[in-house]
Amino acid sequence: MKSKEISKVVLKRLPSYLAYLKSLPDDASPYMSATGLANALGMGEVQVRKDLALVSSGGRPKIGYLRENLIEDISQFLGYDNTTDAILVGAGKLGQALLGYSGFAAYGLNILAAFDARPTTAAIDGKDIFSMDKLEGFCRSRKVLMAIITVPAEYAQEICDKLIACGIKGIWNFAPIHLDVPANILVQNENMATSLAVLSMHLQAQIKEKK
Amino acid sequence: MKSKEISKVVLKRLPSYLAYLKSLPDDASPYMSATGLANALGMGEVQVRKDLALVSSGGRPKIGYLRENLIEDISQFLGYDNTTDAILVGAGKLGQALLGYSGFAAYGLNILAAFDARPTTAAIDGKDIFSMDKLEGFCRSRKVLMAIITVPAEYAQEICDKLIACGIKGIWNFAPIHLDVPANILVQNENMATSLAVLSMHLQAQIKEKK
Repeated sequence: MKSKEISKVVLKRLPSYLAYLKSLPDDASPYMSATGLANALGMGEVQVRKDLALVSSGGRPKIGYLRENLIEDISQFLGYDNTTDAILVGAGKLGQALLGYSGFAAYGLNILAAFDARPTTAAIDGKDIFSMDKLEGFCRSRKVLMAIITVPAEYAQEICDKLIACGIKGIWNFAPIHLDVPANILVQNENMATSLAVLSMHLQAQIKEKK
Repeated sequence: MKSKEISKVVLKRLPSYLAYLKSLPDDASPYMSATGLANALGMGEVQVRKDLALVSSGGRPKIGYLRENLIEDISQFLGYDNTTDAILVGAGKLGQALLGYSGFAAYGLNILAAFDARPTTAAIDGKDIFSMDKLEGFCRSRKVLMAIITVPAEYAQEICDKLIACGIKGIWNFAPIHLDVPANILVQNENMATSLAVLSMHLQAQIKEKK
């Protein structure tokens, strides 16, 4: 069984479990069972039970998991405990928004700096924005493995190639375009354009139904 | 054949086609074939041919599509031509970032205003941030159908229920939690937490391999 195949499926559900477990008040029961979690989130019990067994060995029959331990096990499994340093390329509106967003820390993401072909500002929230000629030196000296691409679609492949040449192994791609990469590089697409298209089609169908 | 099933699969690929077609310089050929598009994006030719035939009837054998028409047909299919008004709930860091991001206009999304339990500022980029008691009146009077949820996970379901009671039909959910909704409501999850977990796991595997 390939570990990659397990993770792709389970990974989509784990953040929900984690968010729910963390949201419970301090005076809630210190235990949480797969059944309880499945009911709370409206998910299948068998699925939740399997997922939890995969990431934590602390489950006890009829009692469940110690909530605190389960939170730690899921966080660790998801890599939120390890801080990942990243750089961002493309300091336009979206890039600046991500650069200024402090919420990523909770997921172990630390954006060190940004790079842009024509920086319009020197820093956002204390994070430097450098010109592109500084990219390679920075990635090499800081041993950065992850990059966030927020350039326009037409420049994304070129930037992607450049990043790989600088030693980047994982890319979080916000440009609405397919990126060609070697097998050892992972691209995770954040396709907001698709999400909006799906929503737009649903709303149009709803409006038509009403008429 | 249900139209919803078609769209789910095709919709994921269409924004890439559109971005590539738009990125071509003005002096490029005015025609684009499915083969040309498939090669440029590293995708299967048969798949691209089917997708294009689904959204545009302008394809001609051996010549392809008039690029300009294809751009228009895809945009229309994706609903980017229709402007969708939306409101945003949760004006924290992420909410403010989305509120200030002008790039959504290209996808037909128009965020009218934001709502927050305790607004810390009156407006972002000219968009008002109101307290929650103004939510229902605003949604009803402006006939808003779409909402963006950027509240912490533990409040997301409560906000979701409230939004549906206000007439919202489509929800773009940035909270890392599963939302329970009636069948006629569409939730599109933007799960950044999952993306980061996938990337983090890949990088950890890469680091282990190196050792």
